[in-house]
Amino acid sequence: MNRLNPHISVDCVIFGFDGLQLKVLLNERELLPDEDSSILSDLLKLPGSLISDTEELDISAYRVLKELTGLDKIFLKQFAVFGSPNRLQNTNDVEWLRKTSGMSIERVVTIAYYSLVKINESNPNESLLEKTSWIPLNEVPQLIFDHNIIVNSALEALRKEMRTDPIGFELLPKKFTLRQLQNLYEVIMGNKLDNRNFRKRIVKLNYLVPLSEKEKGVSHKPAQLYKFDKKTFLRERKDIGFVI
Amino acid sequence: MNRLNPHISVDCVIFGFDGLQLKVLLNERELLPDEDSSILSDLLKLPGSLISDTEELDISAYRVLKELTGLDKIFLKQFAVFGSPNRLQNTNDVEWLRKTSGMSIERVVTIAYYSLVKINESNPNESLLEKTSWIPLNEVPQLIFDHNIIVNSALEALRKEMRTDPIGFELLPKKFTLRQLQNLYEVIMGNKLDNRNFRKRIVKLNYLVPLSEKEKGVSHKPAQLYKFDKKTFLRERKDIGFVI
Repeated sequence: MNRLNPHISVDCVIFGFDGLQLKVLLNERELLPDEDSSILSDLLKLPGSLISDTEELDISAYRVLKELTGLDKIFLKQFAVFGSPNRLQNTNDVEWLRKTSGMSIERVVTIAYYSLVKINESNPNESLLEKTSWIPLNEVPQLIFDHNIIVNSALEALRKEMRTDPIGFELLPKKFTLRQLQNLYEVIMGNKLDNRNFRKRIVKLNYLVPLSEKEKGVSHKPAQLYKFDKKTFLRERKDIGFVI
Repeated sequence: MNRLNPHISVDCVIFGFDGLQLKVLLNERELLPDEDSSILSDLLKLPGSLISDTEELDISAYRVLKELTGLDKIFLKQFAVFGSPNRLQNTNDVEWLRKTSGMSIERVVTIAYYSLVKINESNPNESLLEKTSWIPLNEVPQLIFDHNIIVNSALEALRKEMRTDPIGFELLPKKFTLRQLQNLYEVIMGNKLDNRNFRKRIVKLNYLVPLSEKEKGVSHKPAQLYKFDKKTFLRERKDIGFVI
């Protein structure tokens, strides 16, 4: 990789869904030689990187994702920029950044992405696995820099996008139950949905295809599996038009 | 103003509407001492600036807007980042940037904003007026750097936002006719709307308030004027929900 740019980074809010909870992938900040490993659990951060000077921004973000999830064809969306001159306020954090990058860092503008991952298909790099964890969104602790603000802002951007695009399917396994689908929408939107209305709405959709398979390995009565037929969705997609 | 950051700029796509056409505010690039003024008309650009090292990104964008339109409380939205290592390819453009900034510039990541302005209320700084012009969107010539791409991307972002938010009113005078409103939506969406359906839809909206005034100074039969009642809109706003 080429020379790093001391002023510009990418940070990725990687969302995953395990059927019940919406989670976000966080890493431990690398320790400096003179730091004690007992502080590590207090030093969680979003996966990110300063950009290389010859790298497209999106490529920098895909690089971070590939390193951490082992996946390279996943949903990635640039949603905001965080560039306050005060965002690197904690002197410990800044010292860490200076030492790990080997550069004098005064201000870093970060381009923020969110990514949607099927947790069961992600396959983190072995060496990183122990430093990386999926944390339920409502249990995210204090992160370094302004990373908590970035996580919250990513959730808002995801919600907004779901008003017009059914990107939730990126978070589900290829075959899923209607219960999983409803759970997903409930955790993202942050409120309970009426079961009957949800089912009624679902059965009208030609692009939600019931399969001849059922759930396996569950203790309750196995539920019907469905898949999302993207081609049908794109063909039938209604023009949402505009609000006046 | 403080030291400029050689790596990060803001660029603003300032949209205006004159009742018939959607326009964008462009400036002439400043001439270098050894350049002939005959080339100026070929050197149009988006209003923008390298950021100052102590300035919030949004403040940089507002500074550019204030300098060029005289307005300081206008709609501004950060919508994308353009950071390809190849975006400053034209050697003349790069040389200009280097000379006017007095810095060695290798790569500039630009944070792009679009802004919505009531043309009749904008009041450009006198000294800039002769270097600035409102150009109809479908007549925008070749701009410097990747600024044509940024303009097109801003229009897409504006269209997308109008699927869920009625921000078009930011472009209209406070009192407007239904014809102006329909013209606005037609030029932004890029297609004709059926007059009867549009009127039918409009009369149902409690937040579009007919005034006791009519148009003045027109040769045709003066039309009724309306205003947008934002408070009523926000109170009655329907939850658009989500697509599955």
